Amino acid sequence: MDDDSLRPGEVSVALPDRTDAGVYFIGVIRTPWATRGDCPKRGRPEGPVCTVELDERWRDALLNLETHPRLQILYWMHQSRRDLVRQTPRSSGRTIGTFALRSPVRPNPIASSVVEVVGIEGTTIRVRGLDCVDGTPLIDIKPDRSV
Amino acid sequence: MDDDSLRPGEVSVALPDRTDAGVYFIGVIRTPWATRGDCPKRGRPEGPVCTVELDERWRDALLNLETHPRLQILYWMHQSRRDLVRQTPRSSGRTIGTFALRSPVRPNPIASSVVEVVGIEGTTIRVRGLDCVDGTPLIDIKPDRSV
Repeated sequence: MDDDSLRPGEVSVALPDRTDAGVYFIGVIRTPWATRGDCPKRGRPEGPVCTVELDERWRDALLNLETHPRLQILYWMHQSRRDLVRQTPRSSGRTIGTFALRSPVRPNPIASSVVEVVGIEGTTIRVRGLDCVDGTPLIDIKPDRSV
Repeated sequence: MDDDSLRPGEVSVALPDRTDAGVYFIGVIRTPWATRGDCPKRGRPEGPVCTVELDERWRDALLNLETHPRLQILYWMHQSRRDLVRQTPRSSGRTIGTFALRSPVRPNPIASSVVEVVGIEGTTIRVRGLDCVDGTPLIDIKPDRSV
């Protein structure tokens, strides 16, 4: 978890008393990056192969997935605090609103990445283009629509 | 809510006993479509203007958003069942795995759309490109990275 220290310009808010809906973790993402500090700032199509391991419960939902060379993967950035509305990225030192950033720190820490499929075996999908820490919970797989 | 009837070929699974993480609804999306039956199958950049109304709590997180002509909007498709792993869209009559579809029916009913920004006034963002029912809960706003 993040510690509570704020950089200059950063602003936190009180989170709501309760959440409004629940997410199922449907699998896990395996990557070469053991800590957040190891992760690339952004996944690249020529990056290393990572694996998306879907829980057995959802196996049947993979039918026809092989017809899509590119997928959109949604995952839950479970190590990120959720209460910052203004952030000062170390890279720029400029303070920016959370919704003008793709930082993992946001009210709902959901990441969206488009990946190239390398192969599918059973409930394991090998892909390139991810940037998350090893063990990140998977929440959705969709055909890519960005092109 | 959907009723429990399945079309030919559709398969449901038992959902997990509990969810693993909680989502905050951070605002609401206003569109011209009162029911799901009214919604277009897919949002288009030349579609009608819709509004994304962010809750006051998160206002500061909009700083610098105006520098992004296109945004990625995540929202929660609150009317959709979550237990289908194979679906038979009425349009095609072909049975397809849930993860090979962008149907709202999926384990975590999170939609992702890229929109063109028309204007920002306070905590209201006017956009084109959405396809969801009026009153859909907002869960995230990010700069678009699809181009």
